[in-house]
Amino acid sequence: MPYRAPISDYEFLLRNVVGFDQVAETETFADATADVVSAILTEAGKMCEEVLAPLQRPGDLEPARLENGVMRTSPGYAGGWKAIAEGGWIGMSGDPEYGGMGLPMTVTSAVNEMMSAACLSLQLAPLMSQGQIEALAHHASEAIKALYLPNLMSGAWAGTMNLTEPQAGSDVGALTSKAEANSDGTYAVTGQKIFISWGDNDFCENICHLVLARLPDAAAGTKGISLFLVPKYLPDENGNPGAANDLKVVSLEHKMGLHGSPTCVMQYDGATGWLVGKENGGMAAMFTMMNNARLGVGGQGVGSAEGAYQHALAYALERKQGKTESGTIIDHADVRRMLTEMRADVFAARAIMLANAAAIDMAQATGDADWAARAALLTPIGKAFGTQTGMRVAETGVQVHGGMGYIEETGAAQYYRDARVTAIYEGTNGIQAMDLVARKMMDGGEAASRLLDEIEDQAEKARATMPDLAGPVWEATETLREATEWLVSQGDMNNRFVGAVAYLHAFARVLGGHYHLSAALAEPDGARAKLARYYINALLPEHAGLLVQAQNGADDLFALTADDLVA
Amino acid sequence: MPYRAPISDYEFLLRNVVGFDQVAETETFADATADVVSAILTEAGKMCEEVLAPLQRPGDLEPARLENGVMRTSPGYAGGWKAIAEGGWIGMSGDPEYGGMGLPMTVTSAVNEMMSAACLSLQLAPLMSQGQIEALAHHASEAIKALYLPNLMSGAWAGTMNLTEPQAGSDVGALTSKAEANSDGTYAVTGQKIFISWGDNDFCENICHLVLARLPDAAAGTKGISLFLVPKYLPDENGNPGAANDLKVVSLEHKMGLHGSPTCVMQYDGATGWLVGKENGGMAAMFTMMNNARLGVGGQGVGSAEGAYQHALAYALERKQGKTESGTIIDHADVRRMLTEMRADVFAARAIMLANAAAIDMAQATGDADWAARAALLTPIGKAFGTQTGMRVAETGVQVHGGMGYIEETGAAQYYRDARVTAIYEGTNGIQAMDLVARKMMDGGEAASRLLDEIEDQAEKARATMPDLAGPVWEATETLREATEWLVSQGDMNNRFVGAVAYLHAFARVLGGHYHLSAALAEPDGARAKLARYYINALLPEHAGLLVQAQNGADDLFALTADDLVA
Repeated sequence: MPYRAPISDYEFLLRNVVGFDQVAETETFADATADVVSAILTEAGKMCEEVLAPLQRPGDLEPARLENGVMRTSPGYAGGWKAIAEGGWIGMSGDPEYGGMGLPMTVTSAVNEMMSAACLSLQLAPLMSQGQIEALAHHASEAIKALYLPNLMSGAWAGTMNLTEPQAGSDVGALTSKAEANSDGTYAVTGQKIFISWGDNDFCENICHLVLARLPDAAAGTKGISLFLVPKYLPDENGNPGAANDLKVVSLEHKMGLHGSPTCVMQYDGATGWLVGKENGGMAAMFTMMNNARLGVGGQGVGSAEGAYQHALAYALERKQGKTESGTIIDHADVRRMLTEMRADVFAARAIMLANAAAIDMAQATGDADWAARAALLTPIGKAFGTQTGMRVAETGVQVHGGMGYIEETGAAQYYRDARVTAIYEGTNGIQAMDLVARKMMDGGEAASRLLDEIEDQAEKARATMPDLAGPVWEATETLREATEWLVSQGDMNNRFVGAVAYLHAFARVLGGHYHLSAALAEPDGARAKLARYYINALLPEHAGLLVQAQNGADDLFALTADDLVA
Repeated sequence: MPYRAPISDYEFLLRNVVGFDQVAETETFADATADVVSAILTEAGKMCEEVLAPLQRPGDLEPARLENGVMRTSPGYAGGWKAIAEGGWIGMSGDPEYGGMGLPMTVTSAVNEMMSAACLSLQLAPLMSQGQIEALAHHASEAIKALYLPNLMSGAWAGTMNLTEPQAGSDVGALTSKAEANSDGTYAVTGQKIFISWGDNDFCENICHLVLARLPDAAAGTKGISLFLVPKYLPDENGNPGAANDLKVVSLEHKMGLHGSPTCVMQYDGATGWLVGKENGGMAAMFTMMNNARLGVGGQGVGSAEGAYQHALAYALERKQGKTESGTIIDHADVRRMLTEMRADVFAARAIMLANAAAIDMAQATGDADWAARAALLTPIGKAFGTQTGMRVAETGVQVHGGMGYIEETGAAQYYRDARVTAIYEGTNGIQAMDLVARKMMDGGEAASRLLDEIEDQAEKARATMPDLAGPVWEATETLREATEWLVSQGDMNNRFVGAVAYLHAFARVLGGHYHLSAALAEPDGARAKLARYYINALLPEHAGLLVQAQNGADDLFALTADDLVA
């Protein structure tokens, strides 16, 4: 069924729920008026509907492949990339000085989500470029920026991220790739990297790899890692792709899904690279890229969920079965329940993603540390809950189809297989949860507390007009506050870590309640108010059990030894 | 990694948790002493480890295929079937008069679970035969039983179930296949059936199809359906497969998983069949087969979960990453948490399955209606929670593997793809939940109440020695009781249906708490007591939110129109 871009949902959320008016009032983003944003979203949505959505299934059926070392991408992907590039969607939030549109991340996030809903495997390619653009903009020399940023933003060149090695995944500090200084200021980079998304393609003039590696005598662990820009073709004196660099794609992974996106094993054999940022400062530069990418991957989850939801809804509206008023299955209580839950969670996850992006924009526009802290707090929640929602909604989408959902031709299974990886890459959801309860609580829970204050303030005010919705949101927030205080008080980090995933999920549930309540307050008689009521009465209660689990501590768990688990 | 049959878990559960001693004390099952059962489980486990587990991956890589109308099954499957057949595992619970072993369903369920953990797609074949054996034993004529049962139990012949048609899935009453009486007492069956698991194979002498169809002038809906036995080859005068019947496999489905199991579109063109049961009595006969199959499919979920758990555990024990005591990821808090949850839920789901089977055995051995009601109550819970556990544990198994989980070679993805179908076939999990809150509550909740009484009695007694485990179980049961009473009081069935899935899941959570408590009481200092503590403190609390959702009623949900969901 054809994908329809949910423009009115974005417009509603920006206007009423995630405070985009504040963003548009800043000097930095003064051009992003409501009219401009609507026009942009409409234009991007049109491309997603007409150009990208038709590529979803061909990418699954005819995966990218390596022919004698040459990458052959899925049918139509070159055209899809061209449309994305020509629309300016790669450099949307990039600096206009280098060819970007300078738009807020809030708008970019909405467009990225639409692209991922339409064709996840292709959308991963511009997402990788966006991360690289962000990293170079913050950490690269002027010369590199001047050459690379315009090419990346125009889509003439594409970017990749090279972190993982076979022995160094979540523990990136264990990587062993090496870089040695050449006499001309460049470096010779040597090593093998795995899981490199879009490590090559057949539609860009050059592929620019950001590679983490160690200089000679660098410290062990993450403190001894530096970042290098290693292009497939070395730019000649005019900045055009010249001689081939000493790197290659060794092989492609055979994955459960996301077949249109080639996942490469990359080999670097003394390849020429340029240092980005400081020596041994690679992790700082990498974090810039990763935070951007985590927001983006959370958005992939939301997009997958939206795609799976629309797909299941269309089926439910036409599939005749059993005795219902309409004759179709949408009037069966459990089918209606599934679809409503899908929609309610898509709304919650999308609101968290956009609120996260808006906080990033506010931090950029105002330099305010509180906004930066808000963005940092929301990033792991948005990534993990967005992708969890992608998985769950795709799972439910298969269920709505019944037996047909298990048949590949239907398309429901592809969402299920494709979305699965989003909970793993860019830091597994477990890593996100640990980030939330450790690094993001190093302020003693202050950023979290400020957010909970805001949620309770709104709920308090809403008690007058919507007591039955405001009450549960306020109470859930208070329960979350107690759990947060308990977590922060735990010196033994394992007491935090064992309940971290449950805590993160509960936090997202409460945020979802808050944003749904915002929607209901904005249009008390609208469909979104009805959706909010369902979410708050049926889904929000989940937070209670999760927060009990979050505060259970490590003793019960570690009482079971590894041997106990084997026996 | 090699599958290891969890024999000691079955022995422990039979002895201490699900009351198998009662079963063994009946005259019917007097031969099933603990020693005999242990020997049987050990023998079956050995076959699963050595013969079936090696077929798991080949079945995925080389799916069954149709070559010029001839079925070619996956490499090694013929040998696997032979091992299952020669071990007597098809006719385990069959009547000894016809070649069965006459063992309790409790034991059969454990063996079926092991076979499904080792190789789900092949195990579906004997499961189909078992359902047919059960249906024929209860409803077929003596002549049919004498001919077919021995052949089905020996594995010389195989059985299938033919219910679904393109327009008739969950709504089986909508089927249109026809049967007309021939002059010799047989019937001519005509129609198309879809989703026929193991509709043909290349290792049995005959394939026996049980087909639902309508006689001329039959009533509309389920009341006008009759059941026919339609063999691929018509038995000759000596009972050997003779002339080919007028039926064929038209095509195979291209599924997300379970590739080793051919899912067939079957065409019947006036094929010769024999009536099983009474004219227009097809549904009654079908329910015999379906209840058996639902227990079996729940067991497939448990088996998938066990397989995925063992697979992830082995990876966690050897994968080095980060700084932990062992150097491997099993000592990371969140990995340990995932594995412990997997194991705790496998235990809970397995206990429910075995308790369900034990109730079936007690009903058969004693004729007691209370046992029959207990079995009927547990069947939808066991099917839905078992398969939900299969999906969730397989999902978590992928997560434990990190990026490697998404790569097919690892094998984690196969569990995820294969297990998905179990939540759909044999009645979707939504159908199970509706069955639980409607048909299984037609007694006013009496059967449920009796079970909750038993749970509370045990918890009450356990307060003396294990107050911190007994208390939460007692309180959760009381909350479940209140929800049950609320459900039963709802005349508007939609008030029950919209919360049915949540209610079923909460019921399973409470049952899990009960069985975990039983385990802790049996061996207070053992590893299972530690697992019980984790389950009760961390996972049982989920019931609370679910039971709020279960009692939310239909108003919130149906306030949202289908249009609201589209807009």
